Amino acid sequence: MKLDISKNVDLEFNNAVDQITSELKKEGFGVITEIDLKEKFKEKLRVNYRNYKILGACNPEYAHKAIGVDDKIGLMLPCNILVQQHEDGHVEVSAINPLQSIGGMGDKELDKLATEVSQKLKSAVDRL
Amino acid sequence: MKLDISKNVDLEFNNAVDQITSELKKEGFGVITEIDLKEKFKEKLRVNYRNYKILGACNPEYAHKAIGVDDKIGLMLPCNILVQQHEDGHVEVSAINPLQSIGGMGDKELDKLATEVSQKLKSAVDRL
Repeated sequence: MKLDISKNVDLEFNNAVDQITSELKKEGFGVITEIDLKEKFKEKLRVNYRNYKILGACNPEYAHKAIGVDDKIGLMLPCNILVQQHEDGHVEVSAINPLQSIGGMGDKELDKLATEVSQKLKSAVDRL
Repeated sequence: MKLDISKNVDLEFNNAVDQITSELKKEGFGVITEIDLKEKFKEKLRVNYRNYKILGACNPEYAHKAIGVDDKIGLMLPCNILVQQHEDGHVEVSAINPLQSIGGMGDKELDKLATEVSQKLKSAVDRL
């Protein structure tokens, strides 16, 4: 997957989840959904999986502006942050890049919002 | 937004949310997140907004297969379903098209999964 917001972190898995949540808050993003795929896979498929959580981050001001430009933008919200522990044990934090998912749709206002949001998500991940 | 899974439905807003949830279940998708943006905008921005809900639908088997191909696929999960009531009162249900968000990344196995998932989401919306 083409993506440039990703970082291997020297943190224990749950600590990485807590710290990225806290860094996102500093950028104005609340984590409003949390999906534990390890748990889901165990419950639904009886499969033992590694630690893998998807956090949904939302900045209400940006969301409100973006929906005002394109009322289907909700299909791209919230902005996903992925925290996963690889098989060798190392923990990686990645973020969706709104410049790829929302930007480039040919709307200048959306491009501007996508640029700002991607910078904020990148800042949060970079500080880990 | 380029998108071909969308339908104006002759249903009351909450009923549309219930019915699409039920139709998704028939296709093997559980709604595992629900974001009420009307409520969020009221709470965080003191703005009165129209009915606007984002449902996160997940089919664990497809999710497990897709992550096996690309471990960052979690950034595109769950599959979003948007239920919104427009200002004139009519209710519209839209779904993310995985063929646009995941397909076309140059991986044949992902393209196949994206095709199957998009057909299932479209079937669910079409039955409303």
